[in-house]
Amino acid sequence: MTAAFTWQVRVYYEDTDAGGIVFYANYLKFFERARTEWLRSGGIDQSTLAKEQDIAFVVMRTSVDYHCPATLDNELKLSVMVERHGRASVDFIQEAWRDHNTGAAPTLIATGRIKVACVNRHDLRPRPLPESVCRFIQDTFEQTTLEQSTHVD
Amino acid sequence: MTAAFTWQVRVYYEDTDAGGIVFYANYLKFFERARTEWLRSGGIDQSTLAKEQDIAFVVMRTSVDYHCPATLDNELKLSVMVERHGRASVDFIQEAWRDHNTGAAPTLIATGRIKVACVNRHDLRPRPLPESVCRFIQDTFEQTTLEQSTHVD
Amino acid sequence: MTAAFTWQVRVYYEDTDAGGIVFYANYLKFFERARTEWLRSGGIDQSTLAKEQDIAFVVMRTSVDYHCPATLDNELKLSVMVERHGRASVDFIQEAWRDHNTGAAPTLIATGRIKVACVNRHDLRPRPLPESVCRFIQDTFEQTTLEQSTHVD
Amino acid sequence: MTAAFTWQVRVYYEDTDAGGIVFYANYLKFFERARTEWLRSGGIDQSTLAKEQDIAFVVMRTSVDYHCPATLDNELKLSVMVERHGRASVDFIQEAWRDHNTGAAPTLIATGRIKVACVNRHDLRPRPLPESVCRFIQDTFEQTTLEQSTHVD
Repeated sequence: MTAAFTWQVRVYYEDTDAGGIVFYANYLKFFERARTEWLRSGGIDQSTLAKEQDIAFVVMRTSVDYHCPATLDNELKLSVMVERHGRASVDFIQEAWRDHNTGAAPTLIATGRIKVACVNRHDLRPRPLPESVCRFIQDTFEQTTLEQSTHVD
Repeated sequence: MTAAFTWQVRVYYEDTDAGGIVFYANYLKFFERARTEWLRSGGIDQSTLAKEQDIAFVVMRTSVDYHCPATLDNELKLSVMVERHGRASVDFIQEAWRDHNTGAAPTLIATGRIKVACVNRHDLRPRPLPESVCRFIQDTFEQTTLEQSTHVD
Repeated sequence: MTAAFTWQVRVYYEDTDAGGIVFYANYLKFFERARTEWLRSGGIDQSTLAKEQDIAFVVMRTSVDYHCPATLDNELKLSVMVERHGRASVDFIQEAWRDHNTGAAPTLIATGRIKVACVNRHDLRPRPLPESVCRFIQDTFEQTTLEQSTHVD
Repeated sequence: MTAAFTWQVRVYYEDTDAGGIVFYANYLKFFERARTEWLRSGGIDQSTLAKEQDIAFVVMRTSVDYHCPATLDNELKLSVMVERHGRASVDFIQEAWRDHNTGAAPTLIATGRIKVACVNRHDLRPRPLPESVCRFIQDTFEQTTLEQSTHVD
């Protein structure tokens, strides 16, 4: 996983179900935590965007493949990658990995594709992505490309 | 349980945890569903109160005793009893019971005490309970008292 | 919506987020409630399958399109349709509709595609779908086909 | 707050409700995350206790006072204090604070009292607290007492 941004979460009882594994819907929460922290790492707070520019992000589409179950006390590493972005929406590809920092080989737990739209928070109508978000996406992208080039050389 | 109002919920995977039982925090959700449906049974919609009178209810205090675990597929019966109400708040006592409609003896699963305050939904400041809510509490109360008198006689 | 099975849920505060709408991950919970009740309508309890045959269902893939937000107090109608089933898995298409029983035109809120696998609940390895489940899928299917034929004629 | 252990959590959309604030039931999740991390800071993993000694912790009683609402993006500091412990149970007092590390004065958001019992994870019958847990409670306690003495002197 050579993602531009990663975020770690821990699996608590609240995240599991009677099958003894993480309840599948909760990966959407984990993925969102990672996207939120990626934005925050660029100085962008969703609560500030809402207050100052009446902007909110709404999820338009989610698709998750569950490869392997995670269980209580697992530490998961979530990646954030922007696949593409339009004028008013962003397509993310995100992964959840386990055992990334132990001796064991890392395991891919889940892969998500999330489409997020930028809207006016009052009427939920499309709004162009804020300038700050576009710039931060570009910055993250370029860094990733540079890093990958470095790996190749 | 001779409550003035009861509401049934089913236990799904989403409600359980890796211990194989209902995650304790979820009883607060079950209790709230029952309070909401009790209000609705009196023609009171919280979304309408919010839109038309800017009124919201916020929970000030919760206290729950967990007597016995509930598990997947259990059908739970939630009771709603108003212990007392002030000018801007209501104290509820609520119970969760299992097996109330099978051959088995009913089992008390959890008992909750919930204090709810009436507030302005914009500034969250105390607001007197709406007339409709006060009246509905009184109606529910009187019916309960009458029913209980009947039991006594 | 001419689904073989539908199930209604109510939107409570627990289902909403600070955007004032249903938190998108919760549609996966709603869809699962409907699938569970569809199975139950055929006399199939997941807790019984687990206890008696060590069988559990795990979700392998979810994909949800969010067409329109739902809000507090909305009543949603969830459909269950089996798109196809293999030896050890079932593909569902499910929809969430609002206002299906008011004067207003019904609104499609979300569409989900959910792939569920049948596993041994201890080692999570694939297991053939129980005979009872296969039969119930066939029964539901045939009924739907018959109903649709009736509509055509 | 001079607690022996604190843990920080961030408020995400998943934690909020349509009232625009953290959904009250979620403080029970936050408090549990802090208790879990407190145990982990003492080298105690609940999943290991379950696997190796068949021990689980179940919550017997919760009581939470909500003093002030928290909102999206707030960073909350959760404290863990052991009020008393018996042979097979522990009573915690926990607090949630906001703005502890900004210029603003810290605000007490919620206070919880949580009674946790130690049980056999198969039959849920009481089991004495593991030696390791008793020792860790004592260690945490003594440190707290020492720190408090230092404050006094």
